[in-house]
Amino acid sequence: MKDKISKQDAIFYSHKMAQLSKALWKAIEKDWQEWIKPFKLNINEHHILWIAYHLRGATISEISRYGVMHVSTAFNFSKKLEERGLLQFSKRENDKRNTYIELTSKGTDLLEDTLNEYDPNNNSVLRGVLPMTEMYGKLPEFQDLSALIKEIYGDEYMEILERSLENIEDDDNISDKTTRIEAYKEQSKSS
Amino acid sequence: MKDKISKQDAIFYSHKMAQLSKALWKAIEKDWQEWIKPFKLNINEHHILWIAYHLRGATISEISRYGVMHVSTAFNFSKKLEERGLLQFSKRENDKRNTYIELTSKGTDLLEDTLNEYDPNNNSVLRGVLPMTEMYGKLPEFQDLSALIKEIYGDEYMEILERSLENIEDDDNISDKTTRIEAYKEQSKSS
Repeated sequence: MKDKISKQDAIFYSHKMAQLSKALWKAIEKDWQEWIKPFKLNINEHHILWIAYHLRGATISEISRYGVMHVSTAFNFSKKLEERGLLQFSKRENDKRNTYIELTSKGTDLLEDTLNEYDPNNNSVLRGVLPMTEMYGKLPEFQDLSALIKEIYGDEYMEILERSLENIEDDDNISDKTTRIEAYKEQSKSS
Repeated sequence: MKDKISKQDAIFYSHKMAQLSKALWKAIEKDWQEWIKPFKLNINEHHILWIAYHLRGATISEISRYGVMHVSTAFNFSKKLEERGLLQFSKRENDKRNTYIELTSKGTDLLEDTLNEYDPNNNSVLRGVLPMTEMYGKLPEFQDLSALIKEIYGDEYMEILERSLENIEDDDNISDKTTRIEAYKEQSKSS
């Protein structure tokens, strides 16, 4: 067991992780922007609607933590969404201290519209994992990445992630159009 | 071989990747900001100096592509660094068409100062990979992540990454203070 790393190795490793991580996030951010542009939402606004939708209501603090955005960012964009009639602030019977954000029916409809418009063919990550999906026979799980995020952000972050993912699985409002992975392959070859 | 994924699975998968990727990049971004704050540089400026240093000079287009920043961002921050006397623009004998950025000796000194100030103990990623490092007996390689970035950004991106990493390995200007991984462990337990 190697229990020492040199400062040089540490710089090497963290530089590599910084480059890979920035590249991945910028690709995802670009796809996300393209996807929701027709709905006149920015990524923060869509992320807030998404979290409140999947958690069936959330506090600003939950939005901030889970959306990895500053509390003031979460609050300010939530206010803008409230002004557009897409969500409302409310107190809960069993928790008078916290203010919850819940989607209005207009907000729910808009979020579901974005999900229905989602096109896997325009997704760099889904196209990028194709060769691995063929090699492994399934979508790669990025277990090391999950383990790292769990270490950095704690169990609660991963629990909220799991909860919101379970809600996607249960969601009958997303039209379940099956997409052939072969189709992306053709597209990624030609691009 | 599963060659179809449902739209719901695609949303599920890309949402998970978006959450993990945003969380990782935001953690890295925060550490990076803290690290270089004493040098009055922002991340883009430091990234430009870093790339030009490790590639022994680079074009704006290389900085933009490899730094995953817009060409205008790369250009504007390079201009600011030039005004501070940290880099200079120049043409090369064998390539009159492109403008190269090269660090001045002041810029080289500053970049080397930042590398010497780098403290692996303050790095969330290095602390976060500790349990995996103990389990595997070495730092995790995130091969799936590398493979994905190679698919999205192409071979050239990975080649530039390798080149700049090789230069870190060869760099005698980083004081090679060995850091005990055990030390981070104590710190991450207590935080």
